[in-house]
Amino acid sequence: MSKELKKKLLSMVGKDLEKIENALHENLAPNISLVSDIAGHLLFSGGKRLRPLLTLMCGRLCLYTNNSDSPNNDAAIIKFSTIFEYLHAATLLHDDVVDSADTRRGRDAAHTRWSPAMVVLTGDYLLASSLSLAAETEIPALIKVMAGITEEMSQGEIDQMEKKGNIHLTEKEYLEIIRRKTAVLIQGACRSGAILTNAQPVQQNALDQYGYHLGMAFQMADDLLDYTSDTTTLGKKTGADIREGKLTLPLIHALSKADTKDKALMESIIDNPCFSDHDFNEIVNKIKHYNGIDFTLERAGFHVNQAIKCLDAFGECSAKKVMLMLAEYAIKRES
Amino acid sequence: MSKELKKKLLSMVGKDLEKIENALHENLAPNISLVSDIAGHLLFSGGKRLRPLLTLMCGRLCLYTNNSDSPNNDAAIIKFSTIFEYLHAATLLHDDVVDSADTRRGRDAAHTRWSPAMVVLTGDYLLASSLSLAAETEIPALIKVMAGITEEMSQGEIDQMEKKGNIHLTEKEYLEIIRRKTAVLIQGACRSGAILTNAQPVQQNALDQYGYHLGMAFQMADDLLDYTSDTTTLGKKTGADIREGKLTLPLIHALSKADTKDKALMESIIDNPCFSDHDFNEIVNKIKHYNGIDFTLERAGFHVNQAIKCLDAFGECSAKKVMLMLAEYAIKRES
Repeated sequence: MSKELKKKLLSMVGKDLEKIENALHENLAPNISLVSDIAGHLLFSGGKRLRPLLTLMCGRLCLYTNNSDSPNNDAAIIKFSTIFEYLHAATLLHDDVVDSADTRRGRDAAHTRWSPAMVVLTGDYLLASSLSLAAETEIPALIKVMAGITEEMSQGEIDQMEKKGNIHLTEKEYLEIIRRKTAVLIQGACRSGAILTNAQPVQQNALDQYGYHLGMAFQMADDLLDYTSDTTTLGKKTGADIREGKLTLPLIHALSKADTKDKALMESIIDNPCFSDHDFNEIVNKIKHYNGIDFTLERAGFHVNQAIKCLDAFGECSAKKVMLMLAEYAIKRES
Repeated sequence: MSKELKKKLLSMVGKDLEKIENALHENLAPNISLVSDIAGHLLFSGGKRLRPLLTLMCGRLCLYTNNSDSPNNDAAIIKFSTIFEYLHAATLLHDDVVDSADTRRGRDAAHTRWSPAMVVLTGDYLLASSLSLAAETEIPALIKVMAGITEEMSQGEIDQMEKKGNIHLTEKEYLEIIRRKTAVLIQGACRSGAILTNAQPVQQNALDQYGYHLGMAFQMADDLLDYTSDTTTLGKKTGADIREGKLTLPLIHALSKADTKDKALMESIIDNPCFSDHDFNEIVNKIKHYNGIDFTLERAGFHVNQAIKCLDAFGECSAKKVMLMLAEYAIKRES
């Protein structure tokens, strides 16, 4: 089911993804080869390009719906859509250093091949590249979106870091963390598609909300996969979150429902610095026992439905089809 | 001489510095207290506020010269001048992590009190804050200046890192490093004063060039102080550059003039990973012997004169006086 959906999606957006790929290469032409090496290592190692693809689809959806002759054509939208992939890659680089995670997208994390210092600076360079592109649009609204994203994300990262290892994290706190970590960027990428095509504020807001709900669903599904997938499919070791002291919804829900004995057991496992594979399996069993998986799937499903509703007022076109499929795919993917 | 000049300067800009200080506090009001702690540690530990002060002086200079009624009044210029202090602080934070320097402005470097991860994220937050302020101006030219600065600086940092320990660094390479490291930000701060007050392009360019030359002179003087000052006055250990493998102009010049024997001696000292205070004194003696100090002073003096010339076409006012004194002070200061 998930594989078929992916295949169908790829058949619809394959050509667009190619164009985005080319734009990512074209804009990333610094004078220093090492930057390209490090940035390229991450940028060109199989990312989904979800964010620029969304900018492009949202842009086309507005153009179609409004029958508009926006000053920005398809090529311009594709060019500026890369802003959100560079921004995404920049945060991933800094995250890798911050988390000292050692696997990202199935390859070595950048900072195990290069010094953390170099990775920090490359992240800065990618952030600067996305800022340069945003400045080039000369659209204040788009630049404000970008500024808002960077501010929320950096605050969110710091917040998440402070809450690491907190076994009393509430669902509400978790939702705020994933909003800032994932949803605001996807939200901004979607809104920018509308901004770039001069869409009305009501359409900008609708696509912003589509992006918000899609982002929430994506992150919840991501957090689920860390418990339910296997290392080969996922491209990184499962159980990474809990090993890093990050509580996510499946576990938060299970902890809230567990009886005193199980709760104490789970907390002692989480708190144990020598977390083994056996411990991980024990946690997974408890999560399943207390419906943490199903609850998370249900919450993610809610956001998918909300995302879909946000598209109601837009015209039926290929871009809309893709966006509906992406919403569905968010919680059905395997990696 | 230098102390008197400093006193006179402070008497002229003391009130403005207070206003800048207040603006720095007002804009730095994130929800998370830790960010304020880390950012505040660096931001409010005796920085010179040179960059926002220059934005303000350049803005006033243009207003005076053009007898202009710009939409931006003094308060708005002060508010947006903080962009360049936040940006500066962000780069210092990332630099500290990158260099693993352990003293900055006479206090512990931030990352020895907080984790490098937290310092990286706080740097990101300050960068985001400066971007938000820039976006708030809604002036594309100013946002382009900011984007250009971040791009050049991050490329420059990477370039400098790659060249660390290279004992064959040429004067030309050195000049490019300090241009990106220091001059572009000061240049951008000056140009932005002109942009914020709607000054003509020719005035924008003149102030941009004033900033460029001032920045070059400042960095050369900084690099000199690392050889000629003492640890107490400087607020950090002298000889830090050479210990980190960074060749600066005094040494580059001495190396280029040294005879074969002295050159070999100096290179063996620089290459020695166990660099002692005795070694440092030996290097300082050789630099003096081959006129590395005087040569650097002469080059810095050239840039000061160029900076002063850039102000020729502007009207005589208090802001211009300050800017002329700042140019003089650049190479006469003791820390």
